[in-house]
Amino acid sequence: MLHVVIMAGGAGTRFWPRSRTTTPKQLLNIVGETTMIQQTAARVESLVKPEQTWVVTNALQAPEVFRQLPLVPRENILIEPVGRNTAPCIGLAALHILKKDPQAVMAVLAADHLIKPDSAFCDTLSSAAKIAHESHACITIGIIPTRPETGYGYIQFVENEFKESGNHRAHRVKTFAEKPNLETAINFVAAGDFLWNSGMFIWRADTIVKLIEIYLPELHEGLMEIEQTLGTTKYDKTLDRVYHKVKGISIDYGVMEHTKDVYVIPSSFEWNDVGSWEEVYHLSPKDATGNAVMGEAILLDSTNTLVYAPGKIVAGIGLNDYIIVSTNDALLIVPRAQAQDVKKIVEELQRRKKNEFL
Amino acid sequence: MLHVVIMAGGAGTRFWPRSRTTTPKQLLNIVGETTMIQQTAARVESLVKPEQTWVVTNALQAPEVFRQLPLVPRENILIEPVGRNTAPCIGLAALHILKKDPQAVMAVLAADHLIKPDSAFCDTLSSAAKIAHESHACITIGIIPTRPETGYGYIQFVENEFKESGNHRAHRVKTFAEKPNLETAINFVAAGDFLWNSGMFIWRADTIVKLIEIYLPELHEGLMEIEQTLGTTKYDKTLDRVYHKVKGISIDYGVMEHTKDVYVIPSSFEWNDVGSWEEVYHLSPKDATGNAVMGEAILLDSTNTLVYAPGKIVAGIGLNDYIIVSTNDALLIVPRAQAQDVKKIVEELQRRKKNEFL
Repeated sequence: MLHVVIMAGGAGTRFWPRSRTTTPKQLLNIVGETTMIQQTAARVESLVKPEQTWVVTNALQAPEVFRQLPLVPRENILIEPVGRNTAPCIGLAALHILKKDPQAVMAVLAADHLIKPDSAFCDTLSSAAKIAHESHACITIGIIPTRPETGYGYIQFVENEFKESGNHRAHRVKTFAEKPNLETAINFVAAGDFLWNSGMFIWRADTIVKLIEIYLPELHEGLMEIEQTLGTTKYDKTLDRVYHKVKGISIDYGVMEHTKDVYVIPSSFEWNDVGSWEEVYHLSPKDATGNAVMGEAILLDSTNTLVYAPGKIVAGIGLNDYIIVSTNDALLIVPRAQAQDVKKIVEELQRRKKNEFL
Repeated sequence: MLHVVIMAGGAGTRFWPRSRTTTPKQLLNIVGETTMIQQTAARVESLVKPEQTWVVTNALQAPEVFRQLPLVPRENILIEPVGRNTAPCIGLAALHILKKDPQAVMAVLAADHLIKPDSAFCDTLSSAAKIAHESHACITIGIIPTRPETGYGYIQFVENEFKESGNHRAHRVKTFAEKPNLETAINFVAAGDFLWNSGMFIWRADTIVKLIEIYLPELHEGLMEIEQTLGTTKYDKTLDRVYHKVKGISIDYGVMEHTKDVYVIPSSFEWNDVGSWEEVYHLSPKDATGNAVMGEAILLDSTNTLVYAPGKIVAGIGLNDYIIVSTNDALLIVPRAQAQDVKKIVEELQRRKKNEFL
């Protein structure tokens, strides 16, 4: 049976001031009517029941996750005591799923990606799940690159070595490549056998636990301690102890790059990780002067500007290529070309110890 | 006895979004700790008791005036049914004052001017009141111009014809000049015998009522109807009827420009009518990069910018010579050079019928 694991622990400082410590990007409706985690859960509801849907989050964000996903059973929302990157997170989810369903296939998804249409995505997941179930291989989804992006990792695949299911081919992965420089990225995209690493994986829960045992034995030891206490009163304390002991490591770096039996399915859907306000601008409908407005705005002599201020009115004059975000207690005004510098602002807030604005 | 009349009916659209229909500039603390009307009342408290302090306002703003000036007796706060410019306003105040004190001198002040030091201003008022009481002349205060401002009216005076009191000379007024074009304004300032019309007047209450009778007989007739009902239950209804009947006209245009017995005292104090956000920028303390911040701000690569956002945090990158004003439900971002265009924004809001933001 397929289970979906939504990883929802990210801090998402790039959407300040809309994103805050307790409400990062995945819990916001920055793009669309519902929040990104709600869209993620809704996207797969034709494939999995709420009882087969899992979320891994942290204590700060858990209340909002409960609120936003009322159909997902509380016990399926796993709360990590501290963030330790994706390997422990995925291992923890695997334990919980195996206890319910020893034959389970799990699809690990990010909570904050924009994907459409849902049907094409579900179709891909179904094929991947079938291959993973039968072959015990690890399947990942690779996004067909549309530009030489330096912000993502890449996956190189072997064209003529693949497993097939439905309309999809899962090609054997040749290498996982770290985020490249621009020159390398250009070569990757030109080569044709490189895909963006979307961070989405499909595998049998028992497969990934076994791979963790091989490549991350210390983590596996910790997971086994946790497994002993599943469903008991000792669970929370053990989880806390293990998490504070294990080191943070990504599943890519810790497992995927070492194991041979990894396959990648090239995407057949639109995908966007909505990584910055600049992406939101690109994703938003625009008026004739290129302005994208969420909220109400009066813009004079202004072009190609994003205004994100739901429930407010924004009056601007002479704003060209700007990003403007207004919340109840904070305001951001940056040139679109410097959208990434929002991180600098968050760092400055941390330095000034302005926790009320973080 | 001296009475002070504070005219506080202005709509003040130039300070949107901070100023709103119910809280125009005079009821805000845009400059300083207390509001401008509170500063105006406090400025003259060494000269007049609260019972000799009068405010003319409208129904929308009256509750806030009551709240801000708790010492002024409620019956001294006169509420006009509709705005009819300054002549009816001043006539109405004169009626109320005369009923209490037939010998009264009244000083008519704007509620939203910044003046300092208070002592120099009170000294001027005292001298003006003495001259007005004894000579039955109309006295106005003229501001010594510091630039060829085209936004004010000017008063030309006769150098060698004056009345004296204390350290002050009140010169006979030669002409009231409307707002000039720039060339004319330059000539005015160069001439040396022109002052800015501050809109502040000092005269006996009986004098101004008599002048209204001569130059604005219809208004006088209306005022006499009101006078009959002062202190009776018919007052409100009569006031309403008369105000809807009389035409709006300024005391300058309706009376001052026609009567001969007008004198002007050149100012011996700092004066600023705080006419726009640009003025607020000039009046505010600035950091080394020329930024003036009310609230908390992180400004990177930004210079000579005004941030007015009490209680909020504003993060800006690449803002040079901008005005940024953030309130709970609205946000203004304009280049300083276009500070006057705030009016355009308010007009657009009116056109869109966005009354909740006006």
